[in-house]
Amino acid sequence: MKKILLATSILAATTGFAAAEVAVSGNGRMGVVYDGNDVQFSARARVQFDLSAESDSGLSFGASFRADNAAGAAGNTNMGAGTIWVSGAFGKLAMGDVVSAGEAALGDLSGVGYTGLGDYSDIPYINGDDGNDFDGTGALYSYSAGAIGFHVGLTDGSDDNPATVDADASYSIGVAYDTDAYSVALAYLSGTPGNDTAEEIILGGSGSFGAAKVKAYYADFSNMAIEKSFGLSVDYGMDATTLTAFARRDDFGAAGDMDTFGLGVAYDLGGGAKVKAGVVDSDYNADTVADLGITMSF
Amino acid sequence: MKKILLATSILAATTGFAAAEVAVSGNGRMGVVYDGNDVQFSARARVQFDLSAESDSGLSFGASFRADNAAGAAGNTNMGAGTIWVSGAFGKLAMGDVVSAGEAALGDLSGVGYTGLGDYSDIPYINGDDGNDFDGTGALYSYSAGAIGFHVGLTDGSDDNPATVDADASYSIGVAYDTDAYSVALAYLSGTPGNDTAEEIILGGSGSFGAAKVKAYYADFSNMAIEKSFGLSVDYGMDATTLTAFARRDDFGAAGDMDTFGLGVAYDLGGGAKVKAGVVDSDYNADTVADLGITMSF
Amino acid sequence: MKKILLATSILAATTGFAAAEVAVSGNGRMGVVYDGNDVQFSARARVQFDLSAESDSGLSFGASFRADNAAGAAGNTNMGAGTIWVSGAFGKLAMGDVVSAGEAALGDLSGVGYTGLGDYSDIPYINGDDGNDFDGTGALYSYSAGAIGFHVGLTDGSDDNPATVDADASYSIGVAYDTDAYSVALAYLSGTPGNDTAEEIILGGSGSFGAAKVKAYYADFSNMAIEKSFGLSVDYGMDATTLTAFARRDDFGAAGDMDTFGLGVAYDLGGGAKVKAGVVDSDYNADTVADLGITMSF
Repeated sequence: MKKILLATSILAATTGFAAAEVAVSGNGRMGVVYDGNDVQFSARARVQFDLSAESDSGLSFGASFRADNAAGAAGNTNMGAGTIWVSGAFGKLAMGDVVSAGEAALGDLSGVGYTGLGDYSDIPYINGDDGNDFDGTGALYSYSAGAIGFHVGLTDGSDDNPATVDADASYSIGVAYDTDAYSVALAYLSGTPGNDTAEEIILGGSGSFGAAKVKAYYADFSNMAIEKSFGLSVDYGMDATTLTAFARRDDFGAAGDMDTFGLGVAYDLGGGAKVKAGVVDSDYNADTVADLGITMSF
Repeated sequence: MKKILLATSILAATTGFAAAEVAVSGNGRMGVVYDGNDVQFSARARVQFDLSAESDSGLSFGASFRADNAAGAAGNTNMGAGTIWVSGAFGKLAMGDVVSAGEAALGDLSGVGYTGLGDYSDIPYINGDDGNDFDGTGALYSYSAGAIGFHVGLTDGSDDNPATVDADASYSIGVAYDTDAYSVALAYLSGTPGNDTAEEIILGGSGSFGAAKVKAYYADFSNMAIEKSFGLSVDYGMDATTLTAFARRDDFGAAGDMDTFGLGVAYDLGGGAKVKAGVVDSDYNADTVADLGITMSF
Repeated sequence: MKKILLATSILAATTGFAAAEVAVSGNGRMGVVYDGNDVQFSARARVQFDLSAESDSGLSFGASFRADNAAGAAGNTNMGAGTIWVSGAFGKLAMGDVVSAGEAALGDLSGVGYTGLGDYSDIPYINGDDGNDFDGTGALYSYSAGAIGFHVGLTDGSDDNPATVDADASYSIGVAYDTDAYSVALAYLSGTPGNDTAEEIILGGSGSFGAAKVKAYYADFSNMAIEKSFGLSVDYGMDATTLTAFARRDDFGAAGDMDTFGLGVAYDLGGGAKVKAGVVDSDYNADTVADLGITMSF
């Protein structure tokens, strides 16, 4: 027998009920990817759990993780996937596989293609970045006051051995100023997995110019092979169609530059479905890659 | 705190709501299996996610996978479990761990026992068969016109290395003719994992004769150890009780035949529960095996 | 799009519906743990599925498992996580990762801290204990008559090789007498993984004395390194605050005793959230450990 979950707004209207909830949503994508040599099918589907509730005194709390990451979220020591949080007048404190304060303040450039084509539009943050460099359970504290958002990220050190004292933990501080027309963000990150002396300073912002939205960043690194990174993305919307372009350069000093360019188009079919196509030319890839497919959200 | 999901029909009647949904269902089984030497407990429980929605223009799309397969369904390159699909006037296109066009057209024989007892009632298809021989993300296109159903299956080749061109991909074509009283199906399959030259032609059908439903198939293989396979199953229903028998022969030419016989009974308790017992004697097993248990659907 | 599930009682009141259901609930925790040398973040989040339905004749049946254990619950032979059950006038029969009859009759002492700090308040049962010593799919039969509860546990032997006859299976028998004011329980357990000759006799009980609830046990072991184990926990409730203390001694005869002491406090925030702190001093740990955090249920 099949069961169906209703959209929150419908249920609230139907029942007037608001309390502890387990929200279940999903997404997927299917299509073809040209990997530089031939064409491959590429598809996936995911379910997401969002738990939330409120204490008697009005403290909000919750957790979010994907079904395919359930084991990582349930880990007894390190929460290696998903996040859990409490939120109130003091701000919001999240633990788990949180992003850095830099990513919380600035986010990423706009990507292209239905698969992301390698996600080179992700801005490089030296810690807390998408769990790729998981470094012990992290914590992220965020506080907003008007247009200002303030973020502090911290890991507990890379060592969970209870018999020793941890080496230095990585941390990050970020601040963002957001208005309807534009936003700017500045962040400092210290420490990357395996290198406690690594540092990053990053400045970025976005602005809307008519139908175009532009986002850009400039990052300076210390004590790392990479010395500088900067990039820009433009989204241009025309009714249901959005054109996206991005460019990024990673400067490795004497070792040279690594450049990436991406171009994409998305057409919104409504109901959660979009047709997307993209092409990416990157010095990180041997060949230019491209894809065409449909993305879905449920 | 416990939450409950309602059956789709109840919710639709209550709210008149129809939109993007994440349907959650489940199934399980428990009982005892005689493995030829002694008796073992055998039990399992599963949850299934069925995502579906509709675009503004009426294109249906969705995805289905089990909670225990969530990681396989979420894979970034190969979707090794579950399927994702779009459906419209053009037919239905599914990707992921899809069955072959042969299985889509003909299905399997009726199985016996609460566990399936080795699932020898599964008709052998040389590609796309239940993910046992996963060969890169597959695609299955199906189109129905009246009583005729047409299916085409394709994998993208066994090689996801972007630095090389894939070897030949496996594919399958199937056609079925279905009426209330009987159905016939014919399919051709080319390629099996590790052997691009393998071929299979399979003809099958089913028919209802009073309380009995009979299903049979005949398959001819080329460039494989197995040369022929044929089999038959009969389901005989009496009120809540269904008797099932099947027989199958796999002909390996000079290497001889492998025969399997199965006999089972199912009693429907209502509410999603059935008591089932079965016995299977197969040349693939050293001993005759049997089981007795209860199956559940939620 | 987000979906929300309603609490059972709300939906029943809204729709008058009662049938097959897939209930989804969740829990989580976040905070800091002092491991004896330094402080670590520790967080996790979990989703639980509870499937249930009823046959036409009134037989109840269902299954329970966590999303992070979905693969273990779906195993084709051994159900290594979660349980599946049928229940009626005859009692309740569960299969899977069931507890022993001893744990079903007596349970565990009260734990301390938001993480449990090693869970030394768990009473030692030599089989069926929390899946740590999984020994083939287990079964647990329970029957209640008034204040008396009767339990029998059984595994099918540690060997699932169909070509051999299993060695002796482990089993357990337990009986409990429960009133509002106090309860007593007695159990016998035979066999532990890797040691069929191991035996345990355990006697325990609990009682309420005003705001205090006391629980104690005494266990005697045969053919094992551990010879005796006994312990006691006290919960003292004052409005939203509960103080908990436990002490436990494991007697290894000539090899000496291993003692554990724990002290904790919990403050109920309402809505499913509790703030908890605890400290544990155990001979099993090199250092005294402590934690402070929040637990959540959804």
